[in-house]
Amino acid sequence: MLGQIIVYRLPWTWKCSKLLMKSIHAGLHAVAAILAIISLVAVFDFHNAKNIPNMYSLHSWVGLTVVILYILQLLLGVFIFLLPWAPLSLRALVMPIHVYSGLLIFGTVIATVLMGVTEKLFFALTSSGYSTSPPEGVFTNTLGLLIVVFGALIFWIVTRPQWQRPKEPNSIFLQPNGGAQEGVEGSAINFSNVDKSDSELNNEVAARKRNFIVDEAGQRSTM
Amino acid sequence: MLGQIIVYRLPWTWKCSKLLMKSIHAGLHAVAAILAIISLVAVFDFHNAKNIPNMYSLHSWVGLTVVILYILQLLLGVFIFLLPWAPLSLRALVMPIHVYSGLLIFGTVIATVLMGVTEKLFFALTSSGYSTSPPEGVFTNTLGLLIVVFGALIFWIVTRPQWQRPKEPNSIFLQPNGGAQEGVEGSAINFSNVDKSDSELNNEVAARKRNFIVDEAGQRSTM
Repeated sequence: MLGQIIVYRLPWTWKCSKLLMKSIHAGLHAVAAILAIISLVAVFDFHNAKNIPNMYSLHSWVGLTVVILYILQLLLGVFIFLLPWAPLSLRALVMPIHVYSGLLIFGTVIATVLMGVTEKLFFALTSSGYSTSPPEGVFTNTLGLLIVVFGALIFWIVTRPQWQRPKEPNSIFLQPNGGAQEGVEGSAINFSNVDKSDSELNNEVAARKRNFIVDEAGQRSTM
Repeated sequence: MLGQIIVYRLPWTWKCSKLLMKSIHAGLHAVAAILAIISLVAVFDFHNAKNIPNMYSLHSWVGLTVVILYILQLLLGVFIFLLPWAPLSLRALVMPIHVYSGLLIFGTVIATVLMGVTEKLFFALTSSGYSTSPPEGVFTNTLGLLIVVFGALIFWIVTRPQWQRPKEPNSIFLQPNGGAQEGVEGSAINFSNVDKSDSELNNEVAARKRNFIVDEAGQRSTM
């Protein structure tokens, strides 16, 4: 989920079109969702083959919930933001929920992984004794700590304004102050960049209106 | 940590002074930090009395790390934001880190609790068989899910602009547009409210300057 969440925050992608970046964001998430489903099937198959009951642990409850939410988030995202049919008012309404859900799902996946690692350590290190801190235990605990650090890093990148995808350059003409606001936003130290997509949405509204006018003039829409 | 994080987001507290709310925020965190230290001492005492090794599990590693970070966050918060000595430039620099760390620590505490619950279930339900989904297992898993829901709710409240503490009313006189910006911010659907405190800081800068002038005029400072 690393690439998908921070895909809009790589400065070298800011030259790419919004539609391309949206497609990459959705595409990477789709690949991750397919891998998650394959993993779940593998887990259930393994349990059934070994006569281990399914879905009894907290790890499994939280994990299955978050995978279902992840697939829902993906489908809603594709239908509302990627495909061109959703009205812009709906996009504006759903965008903050989409951003919130994305980060919540990401955080919950980290928690699920940590519970899974905890479970696995207690299962696997019964003979060597997890409580005697064997090398495998220390190694895997370190891995667990690194997963937390990884989550913290992604969360930091996503909430920094410096790594925010700049507004579409052609949209500044429609801003009352001719885009001067851009610099102010860039220097502000706040979390508003997380929902940068809101202003992007406004730009899309503006761009659609503009393109509509351009279309009217007989030119081909760039949307 | 419920009360401390959302304390600025209760509309009935918006009439209270910023200093009072800061003190409540810091005071509740201090109580929580003391309780956390007492709990840690109890855990180590229990382990030592029962000859259980300390600090071998991922839960304990992440848990101790987060308690240390929590105490650091509290001390830095008191010295930089509560006590009046820190220069405003330092406050402005540290505020986004303070907000980020606070939410990160909150999320990591949730993850630590979930790992702790997982551990405890595997320890406690060995005889009754956690894998056969006994009532205790289902009950505690449900509790675990509710902890995730609780975390999601707090995270939602903290990132909604509607529950954002309004700027100090007297500071609007210093805004170039006489505070009209307030309404715009309030209606914007974004995450900027998380770092509302930044604009509060600017207001403090403004308020200090204003009070300085008032002091000059021989009146008593209200700061």
